[in-house]
Amino acid sequence: MGNGKTWITDPFWLHYRSLVRHEMIPYQWKVLNDEIDVRIERERDDASIPAEKSHALENFRIAAGLHTGRHYGWVFQDSDVYKWLEAVAYTLMEETDESLKRTADSVVDLIAAAQEEDGYLGTYFTVEEPDRKFKSLINSHELYCAGHFMEAAAAYHQATGNRKVLETAEKLAACIDRVLGAEGRFGYDGHEEIEIGLMKLYHLTGEDRYLRLSRHFLRIRGTDGDFFGEQKKNDPGRKPLIGGLDQFPRRYFQVHKPPVDQDTAEGHAVRLVYMCTAMADVAASAGDQDMLNACRKIWRNIVDRRMYITGGIGSTVRGEAFTFDYDLPNDTMYCETCASVGLIFFAAQMLRSENAGEYGDVMERALYNTVLSGTALDGKHFFYVNPLEVNPAASALDPGKSHVKPVRPEWLGCACCPPNLARLLASLDRYIYTVKEDLVLANLYISSRSELSVSGGTIHITQTTDYPKHGIISIRVSSEESLSFDLGLRIPGWSRTYEVIVDGNAGGRTGGDGDAFANGCYFLRNLTGEHEIVLKLCVEARLWSANPRVKENVGKAAMVRGPVVYCLEEADNGKNLHLFSIDPFCRPEEEEEDGELGNIIRITAGGKRMREPAEGSSLYCLSDEEAWQEEDARLRFIPYYTWANRGSNEMTVWVRTAQGRHYYGRKKGE
Amino acid sequence: MGNGKTWITDPFWLHYRSLVRHEMIPYQWKVLNDEIDVRIERERDDASIPAEKSHALENFRIAAGLHTGRHYGWVFQDSDVYKWLEAVAYTLMEETDESLKRTADSVVDLIAAAQEEDGYLGTYFTVEEPDRKFKSLINSHELYCAGHFMEAAAAYHQATGNRKVLETAEKLAACIDRVLGAEGRFGYDGHEEIEIGLMKLYHLTGEDRYLRLSRHFLRIRGTDGDFFGEQKKNDPGRKPLIGGLDQFPRRYFQVHKPPVDQDTAEGHAVRLVYMCTAMADVAASAGDQDMLNACRKIWRNIVDRRMYITGGIGSTVRGEAFTFDYDLPNDTMYCETCASVGLIFFAAQMLRSENAGEYGDVMERALYNTVLSGTALDGKHFFYVNPLEVNPAASALDPGKSHVKPVRPEWLGCACCPPNLARLLASLDRYIYTVKEDLVLANLYISSRSELSVSGGTIHITQTTDYPKHGIISIRVSSEESLSFDLGLRIPGWSRTYEVIVDGNAGGRTGGDGDAFANGCYFLRNLTGEHEIVLKLCVEARLWSANPRVKENVGKAAMVRGPVVYCLEEADNGKNLHLFSIDPFCRPEEEEEDGELGNIIRITAGGKRMREPAEGSSLYCLSDEEAWQEEDARLRFIPYYTWANRGSNEMTVWVRTAQGRHYYGRKKGE
Repeated sequence: MGNGKTWITDPFWLHYRSLVRHEMIPYQWKVLNDEIDVRIERERDDASIPAEKSHALENFRIAAGLHTGRHYGWVFQDSDVYKWLEAVAYTLMEETDESLKRTADSVVDLIAAAQEEDGYLGTYFTVEEPDRKFKSLINSHELYCAGHFMEAAAAYHQATGNRKVLETAEKLAACIDRVLGAEGRFGYDGHEEIEIGLMKLYHLTGEDRYLRLSRHFLRIRGTDGDFFGEQKKNDPGRKPLIGGLDQFPRRYFQVHKPPVDQDTAEGHAVRLVYMCTAMADVAASAGDQDMLNACRKIWRNIVDRRMYITGGIGSTVRGEAFTFDYDLPNDTMYCETCASVGLIFFAAQMLRSENAGEYGDVMERALYNTVLSGTALDGKHFFYVNPLEVNPAASALDPGKSHVKPVRPEWLGCACCPPNLARLLASLDRYIYTVKEDLVLANLYISSRSELSVSGGTIHITQTTDYPKHGIISIRVSSEESLSFDLGLRIPGWSRTYEVIVDGNAGGRTGGDGDAFANGCYFLRNLTGEHEIVLKLCVEARLWSANPRVKENVGKAAMVRGPVVYCLEEADNGKNLHLFSIDPFCRPEEEEEDGELGNIIRITAGGKRMREPAEGSSLYCLSDEEAWQEEDARLRFIPYYTWANRGSNEMTVWVRTAQGRHYYGRKKGE
Repeated sequence: MGNGKTWITDPFWLHYRSLVRHEMIPYQWKVLNDEIDVRIERERDDASIPAEKSHALENFRIAAGLHTGRHYGWVFQDSDVYKWLEAVAYTLMEETDESLKRTADSVVDLIAAAQEEDGYLGTYFTVEEPDRKFKSLINSHELYCAGHFMEAAAAYHQATGNRKVLETAEKLAACIDRVLGAEGRFGYDGHEEIEIGLMKLYHLTGEDRYLRLSRHFLRIRGTDGDFFGEQKKNDPGRKPLIGGLDQFPRRYFQVHKPPVDQDTAEGHAVRLVYMCTAMADVAASAGDQDMLNACRKIWRNIVDRRMYITGGIGSTVRGEAFTFDYDLPNDTMYCETCASVGLIFFAAQMLRSENAGEYGDVMERALYNTVLSGTALDGKHFFYVNPLEVNPAASALDPGKSHVKPVRPEWLGCACCPPNLARLLASLDRYIYTVKEDLVLANLYISSRSELSVSGGTIHITQTTDYPKHGIISIRVSSEESLSFDLGLRIPGWSRTYEVIVDGNAGGRTGGDGDAFANGCYFLRNLTGEHEIVLKLCVEARLWSANPRVKENVGKAAMVRGPVVYCLEEADNGKNLHLFSIDPFCRPEEEEEDGELGNIIRITAGGKRMREPAEGSSLYCLSDEEAWQEEDARLRFIPYYTWANRGSNEMTVWVRTAQGRHYYGRKKGE
């Protein structure tokens, strides 16, 4: 995060970044311009406004007075443009593209033109209901959109030096500060995000007022009796900006108590991790210990009790929300792509305050699994919902699972996930290291070269690895001789062994690491000059168990290789995946493949498969009436993120472990 | 069913019938009179009209012109009165009660007074929208209510000889026949029930026109393109009578194809079994082979693929509906009490056409489990939803399980289940035998005495048993010497062995039964004079398995004793029931108890319980990192129908069977 620059050279990630540049950004641009028939996927929860088209740029043209017409789409439709702009900014940092820059500059001009004299920016209210500005913050998403614009503006300014985008954002921030800041009226948004955007402006400009305002929003949140209810009373007889939102409980919006007093992850998962991202940022930037403590507690609650093995969060579709400790159903959950993107944001901010490997562990758990699962291998189809178990028949015929899609749709009416994914992948270089005063934490192992500002000078780091395919990471560091810094290497919690070899001298758990290992990191102290460091991790495929408090996974195991969670898919194993059980003592076989699923390592392991009973077999029978036949079987696993790229079919992450004896039944009428 | 009379003498059932008489009927009477604050339990699906009070009798007074005011409550509120009246009728058949009869007579007078000149009866339309009669049959429930009145009228006339009730019903039937009969306009109700009501009138009066009209409704159903849609077009700008119903797919209403062409159980479970009940009745009464074949297919689909081990049906709350084959989730299902009541109706009608034990098997499976579970032991609290697995935290915090209540509420806004339960229990005597020309099928084993009309004369049967507590049933038959009949004894499919001893001479599976056993029945041919028959069944507690195609139950077993399904409850076993596994080779121990759960047999069996991991244990870990500790445990089962009588707590029917080895985890940070 900041303090230098990293260029990713790893082919795996370059491929995804190329998809962002060559597929997602151009595709999203067409969508924003209504040049593509958007396939409708109404979201069950808040489907008050259908979206047959985006209309997002047209809304800006109308707000700017360039076109006439009505606003169309979600009240937060503007944010699609901002997220696109932010993704563009990151790709331009990676590689110049004059044509793309010209397009983006024109978007900046359009946004600036749509801004009102006093700095207000928000096409819905400018066009449709100017007298209702800031009067229905529970669902207006005005500050949410503003936050996304600030994030985009900071990135785009950094990438291109464009001044107008920054001026527009600062003017908008000033408007919000005037109306809702400490001196203004009391208020905060139903969807956290402004707090992140303001911090981006703060980091870019160093202006304290942005930090102050962000902290203000976090401090006042949930301190009132019922702010949203009061606003509603004062906004009588008006159509809700988004239907149904006001029926959710207070914890949906994280306003059941002030954020600093929260100690569990509640409500809408994306909102929660956005709130925590801002809170961890403010904590690190302003030394706010209360906020840091709250972040720590919420983090522990997520990681110890409310997170899927894929780094997915959000156990229910209703409210796309957290539910309660250890409630992690595999086939009805939400696990929104955006929420895992936000979890990575949160982890990255925590690393600024704490030197702990766990944050990087969770970052890569979310990244290699739920985030990558969010996009098809073609970069053109996207999941919102990332299930751990799918049966296409259930998605079609069980209304409780209709939100679980067995294949990725082309685009979605509420288009949050694809651009969120794009902006994360396009800025992935920023998550590899956390740079502090005289310490560099290596969080992600991705081939790359970096110039980082540490200890008052510049150091160069080159990572060479094909991790996580293999577990060997070569890290070459070089710095001026007068400069000394510490390097903290994350040692993933799942790596049974590790070895650190510095300039040919072995260290590590097996080689006596003394005090070097702490909190999931291996620290190399006082590095200066050039060094060749080799980190050896154990990425072999292994079976994982869930805490037995997780009801759904008792008696089951998941195949995991390094950070990559695996799954069984019908395409490789046939129907009725639940009939399989895996031998808990199996020795998984790994095989590299460069095929339709890309360059992957397939895993095969031994187990059993129950024979399907004959047609017409009875539904229930005495357990010992007849043997329940099992036969030896090979279970064929693929990386979870590659699932659903071969058409609609069954998938499961968790697999029963082989049991003792089973019995199954006589036919009816016997 | 008809052809005689049976008096139940069994204390277990007399107790329930006493609850109907002394608790349910008086309580429901108070509710109908708005003398009780009705606790609101809004149904998620069609909660357009909240019901803080019943207002049901007041609606009749207003429709009759006795009071002034507006109709209040559901559009089908009238049916609550009719179901009450029907339950009263059955209790009056069992035992006279002049005061209750006077009350019921006055209700009949009120209903008759509310009937319009042309026979129309329906307080909502009479009071609120007289010009909209029969114009929105998808959700008007006009024929549904009419059907319930016909059922009540037939029963009440039979019980008391009241002529007015029958005249009112016949006038109503004539009105419907005029408007919607073969000569009238095309139309049928969104909720089947009129078809049953008409058959009750037919059986009582022998008038062919009722059979014809019932058959007509069944024949034309689903034959049009989109009848409900056409009606909606012709009823523009009017408020839906029940919100949201028109968003359900056609199969919800069983109009996706004509009933005779249906071969799977689709849509709203209560609607489906009501349709099948009528269809099986018409098939038996009119010899309609197409209808019988359709019933057979739908029956097989339910029993072989879509029924819970408790006799519950309806796998999803959305639409309270069937989903797809083998989809039987234990904790999100609906399993409405009413639907199992309807399944018993369906089975009873099938017995008229087929001499097969399976119908009785399913009848008692539904009766002893889902139906009895529908009421608390006090007879004052009721379940709509009868889950097979409950965690109170999930009911409170997972919106996908909010319909699953961990305790029975006092009453419900939409009051279908309690009166349905009452009318079934009050008429249970009718289900014990199916009487045919010269054959009596014994379906249920319940101490009772009967006078039945067979072979042109009267026979007497006395059952003496404490089944299902024990498996010995004594059946004393006596008939005039000139009269000869066959007796078919149901041999439950679950009874591993059976023995039939006639006048001291043993027969049965173990004693060489020759041709006597067929289709789940043991036939005693050409009985005449007096005989003492003893049937010995094996009711010992046993573990049952589900067909492995049922994903949710793979690797699990259920404890069942005779027809009674058992469950684990937190009150007896502590929290986290999912940590238990049962030894598949256990020898269940049975112990009779007369305590807070009534006179029951408790079952204890051996198994294991995983130790709960220490607080702060990690959520996921390598499977072989550390042993997952299990300890020997005793599992304490109670009959499923007695659950949730000791406060809110966990419950489960299906229990994992003991597995091989398990491993579980290191703590975080290690």
